[in-house]
Amino acid sequence: MSHAWLDEVKWTSDGLVPAVAQDADSGRILMMAWMNREALGLTAEKRVAVYYSRSRQKLWYKGESSGHEQLVEDIRLDCDADVVVLSVRQKGGIACHTGRESCFYRRLEGDQWVTTDPVIKDPKQIYGQ
Amino acid sequence: MSHAWLDEVKWTSDGLVPAVAQDADSGRILMMAWMNREALGLTAEKRVAVYYSRSRQKLWYKGESSGHEQLVEDIRLDCDADVVVLSVRQKGGIACHTGRESCFYRRLEGDQWVTTDPVIKDPKQIYGQ
Repeated sequence: MSHAWLDEVKWTSDGLVPAVAQDADSGRILMMAWMNREALGLTAEKRVAVYYSRSRQKLWYKGESSGHEQLVEDIRLDCDADVVVLSVRQKGGIACHTGRESCFYRRLEGDQWVTTDPVIKDPKQIYGQ
Repeated sequence: MSHAWLDEVKWTSDGLVPAVAQDADSGRILMMAWMNREALGLTAEKRVAVYYSRSRQKLWYKGESSGHEQLVEDIRLDCDADVVVLSVRQKGGIACHTGRESCFYRRLEGDQWVTTDPVIKDPKQIYGQ
């Protein structure tokens, strides 16, 4: 892709940028994942979040297996141009592969990470395992 | 530091974890920076955000030169244990070194990044340059 706006992003040496997805209504931070140039270009074009899976080393169309797509309302870039924030509407109300609304379901209480969020849907049901 | 909860964080090969700071009231995402083990430990202990500056390769006590400290209400960890989110109260209402509330002051409109947020305070005044 030859979009000049993509050239303004400061990609890592691996050609990636961290992307934070935030619920457009509640402001809840749902997840952070990575995008390469193609993923960010597709996200802007289709208005649906596309990430890059570092473990699988390929594009990750969020929701492709779960149905939990993220409809993108807004894309923002930070002062250093090395982080993007997506404002999204989360289909199914579940962003996390554990079946929770947000991946940030653990809170530091004293010296322990405590799970504070319920599982909305069993991952076995989501992924049909 | 020997805190077991710090061992649960999946640090990068450089010993870092990305930290997203979000305004405790509005939910606005203010910035993303990095923390090493010491920074996260100090943040939890002092309830004030301490990051690790990758460019300066040392602890970055947020607000040390600007006065714009971040009082930490909440620390969360994601499902992969490789990202943290801080819920903060931002002193001065300015998180960004450009003098804006948030570092994410540019919005993608069409094929351009458009600055949408005003400068609240001239950085020259903030940093006394």
